[in-house]
Amino acid sequence: MAGRRALKAVLIDLSGTLHIEDSAVPGAQDALKSLRQASVAVKFVTNTTKESKRNLLERLQRLNFDLQVKEEEIFTSLSAARSLLEQKQLRPLLLVEDGALEDFTGINTSEPNAVVIGLAPDHFNYQTLNKAFRMILDGAPLIAIHKARYYKREDGLALGPGPFVTGLEYATDCKATVVGKPEKTFFTQALSDLGCSPAEAVMIGDDARDDVGGAQDAGMLGILVRTGKYRPGDEDKTSPAPHLTCDSFPDAVEHVLQNLL
Amino acid sequence: MAGRRALKAVLIDLSGTLHIEDSAVPGAQDALKSLRQASVAVKFVTNTTKESKRNLLERLQRLNFDLQVKEEEIFTSLSAARSLLEQKQLRPLLLVEDGALEDFTGINTSEPNAVVIGLAPDHFNYQTLNKAFRMILDGAPLIAIHKARYYKREDGLALGPGPFVTGLEYATDCKATVVGKPEKTFFTQALSDLGCSPAEAVMIGDDARDDVGGAQDAGMLGILVRTGKYRPGDEDKTSPAPHLTCDSFPDAVEHVLQNLL
Repeated sequence: MAGRRALKAVLIDLSGTLHIEDSAVPGAQDALKSLRQASVAVKFVTNTTKESKRNLLERLQRLNFDLQVKEEEIFTSLSAARSLLEQKQLRPLLLVEDGALEDFTGINTSEPNAVVIGLAPDHFNYQTLNKAFRMILDGAPLIAIHKARYYKREDGLALGPGPFVTGLEYATDCKATVVGKPEKTFFTQALSDLGCSPAEAVMIGDDARDDVGGAQDAGMLGILVRTGKYRPGDEDKTSPAPHLTCDSFPDAVEHVLQNLL
Repeated sequence: MAGRRALKAVLIDLSGTLHIEDSAVPGAQDALKSLRQASVAVKFVTNTTKESKRNLLERLQRLNFDLQVKEEEIFTSLSAARSLLEQKQLRPLLLVEDGALEDFTGINTSEPNAVVIGLAPDHFNYQTLNKAFRMILDGAPLIAIHKARYYKREDGLALGPGPFVTGLEYATDCKATVVGKPEKTFFTQALSDLGCSPAEAVMIGDDARDDVGGAQDAGMLGILVRTGKYRPGDEDKTSPAPHLTCDSFPDAVEHVLQNLL
């Protein structure tokens, strides 16, 4: 392809792309296996504020995906937050659910000088938010895992972390650093240990804005799949349009194997 | 004065103007007495999300202000919310502190179809905010008593209602109807039972934006006093400039008596 080098890495979204809740997308396990046999690095990238890498890995194994997936092949918005903390040597007040805490093991949280906020209903009370507010006023940076407005829960829609991040931004007149998709740094960090440039990578996902738009803004190719949260017309929501829109993950892999390697 | 009719009403802010916490501004009681003897209506107007009219009245009495002050001479942001609910025949979910509830006595709160939000730390938890979020998604209007970012508490700054209002606005992609100062409707409602137009009224307060700017935007005169939250330079924060900036409430009253009646 003009202006692009040969493909070296494929980034793959999880929920909505490889599986829908606790069911694998039909053919996705075999497609992943074919991709593994090609000479290309694979990484699983997802926006989560509450699931640790271990949880995500266990689900993939339960759904009979490649048993060879390693924790270091999974890169999440929690990993991105951890990277930022390490890079800036910050000690966070972690407003994340207990299940996510293990991804921050080893991070110094004494005398915190930064606020990290995910979807953490147990922490979203006046007292804790006020503590975060005062820290930010005193100069602590506000780091948002992501800023989703809401998410779908079994009993209906429920508030995401975004409203609480936005409230703290309003109170303190500051802007949060968002670390999850669709931020450009999320994608470049996901590639950082693969020794390849964005021009050598493709992202496959079901979210036109967070997966495809974000990856393409970072210089990668983006493939949109019509599963998960995809709704007709989503491919028109990013500019430039997705490199490809296809029915599901197996079709995306076929395209990669036949045209991009 | 060119273009203005004779003064018929004086609106007076409470905290910061008549008193600072539990101390009256020196000379304020006598000044209020002089104003009472002139042929002008007096109304006390304040942004509060947690103090009922009765509480405010009791404080004025405790500080030896005019014992003749009646509840109906006090108009607060809670009164403004109540007016709006009555006018639109709405049944509110009231996210206000218990102390404020008595100002909503008689308002039907069964099967709520509107959200009213003040500073209510006890209600600011994920579950209650989520309930409000779902109601707003279902079409319930969001009514904010006011949108203050924070306020000063004995132990330091603390979150105001604004961040929570803003969070719900972000989550639902809607705009709250704000009822307190500096909204124009707040001032016109405060005057509504006095039978006078904004051009026949003056507002005295310590907040350049909420008191003076708001009143002047509603067509009234605004007098800024250098007590309470006043900081040098505040008079430059409103456009047009305040009708007058003076040291304190007694000076403001002297100006009214000598020049505006």
